[in-house]
Amino acid sequence: MKKFAVVLAGCGVYDGAEIQEAVLTLLAIEKNGGAYQVFAPDILQYDVINHLSGKAMAEQRNVLVESARIARGDAKPLNEFDANEFDAIIFPGGFGCAKNLSTWAIEGDQCTVNTDVEKAIRAMITAGKPIGAMCIAPVILGKLIKGTRLTTGNDKASGDFIQRMGSDYVPASHGEVVVDKERKLFTTPCYMLDASIVQIAEGTENIVKAMMDEC
Amino acid sequence: MKKFAVVLAGCGVYDGAEIQEAVLTLLAIEKNGGAYQVFAPDILQYDVINHLSGKAMAEQRNVLVESARIARGDAKPLNEFDANEFDAIIFPGGFGCAKNLSTWAIEGDQCTVNTDVEKAIRAMITAGKPIGAMCIAPVILGKLIKGTRLTTGNDKASGDFIQRMGSDYVPASHGEVVVDKERKLFTTPCYMLDASIVQIAEGTENIVKAMMDEC
Repeated sequence: MKKFAVVLAGCGVYDGAEIQEAVLTLLAIEKNGGAYQVFAPDILQYDVINHLSGKAMAEQRNVLVESARIARGDAKPLNEFDANEFDAIIFPGGFGCAKNLSTWAIEGDQCTVNTDVEKAIRAMITAGKPIGAMCIAPVILGKLIKGTRLTTGNDKASGDFIQRMGSDYVPASHGEVVVDKERKLFTTPCYMLDASIVQIAEGTENIVKAMMDEC
Repeated sequence: MKKFAVVLAGCGVYDGAEIQEAVLTLLAIEKNGGAYQVFAPDILQYDVINHLSGKAMAEQRNVLVESARIARGDAKPLNEFDANEFDAIIFPGGFGCAKNLSTWAIEGDQCTVNTDVEKAIRAMITAGKPIGAMCIAPVILGKLIKGTRLTTGNDKASGDFIQRMGSDYVPASHGEVVVDKERKLFTTPCYMLDASIVQIAEGTENIVKAMMDEC
């Protein structure tokens, strides 16, 4: 049974993990015969957004604690991630990827990647194991890795960034998975496109299946 | 196209809507050719639970605002629900059903049901349109309606309560839907049983399909 680490960035598209992408990733893993463990960095969120009004709230929330909502309590701190125990690692999207797991939404080209996230990704690359990223999460891979090929659908800001960081930007449509076979990097647009939940289910299914084949 | 109102109780199994059940309900509706609108009462949650530790946090959160996380912002206050505009209404589970939508978890037999929830359910019954409830949400139907048949899987506390309120309790396993054809009430256990996410997807798919047939 292939074991996936699923890294979440909180709980909610505007300040954390995109919930539908996260849940449908868990479903795709189990449906295709795999198992999963949810991880998240044990840090404060960059901000808390009222998802009804779109405005910031005067609150603080913890990325790991909020991510545990999606995982029904079973989430581990990302600094406990051990590449030896997993066959693959995957990052669902949501603005949390660009505000909590990295600072791309705030600092653009000068952004940094959370230390635990960077360690986990580098360990999987060293181990030659598949890494998946959906929605806006590929900017993290763009920042850390040069000379690869990535997609965020058809988005100018993140596409230009990925190219400036030294990788190819590959436009992709609903459900399409862009693959760097050599480095085993898998990306798919999900809600970076104007998508329906059925299209998100297709995207998560396709990226998880493609990664399983390379485990 | 059949239009479902999906009523959420917040965002997280221990103090709100069960996130996986909620997302997989939205997926099942769209996958089977329907459309959905998320609703939630605009009230404070009974409590806020740290989903990692299981302990209460000294915070207040709003049921509608948190439910909007699951709906990517597109959630409406339940007092705006109009039975004329929908073909069916469905309640995913989570403790929020028993703490926010009703007070069953706190007050047991003496529990009350949120006014907007009660109005929505009574309006759909009057209109002869299907009502679905999963996980612990059927206790709300048990409190409001006598002489029906409901399931929460195989759970003594909620089962005894449903019987004391004057309805039949029907034990059910993974993915099974208990139906009151006359009143068009549909219930399925989901995470009231020790289930996997694939089993939850089966349950949500089965209940939504059964309801679609009666729309």
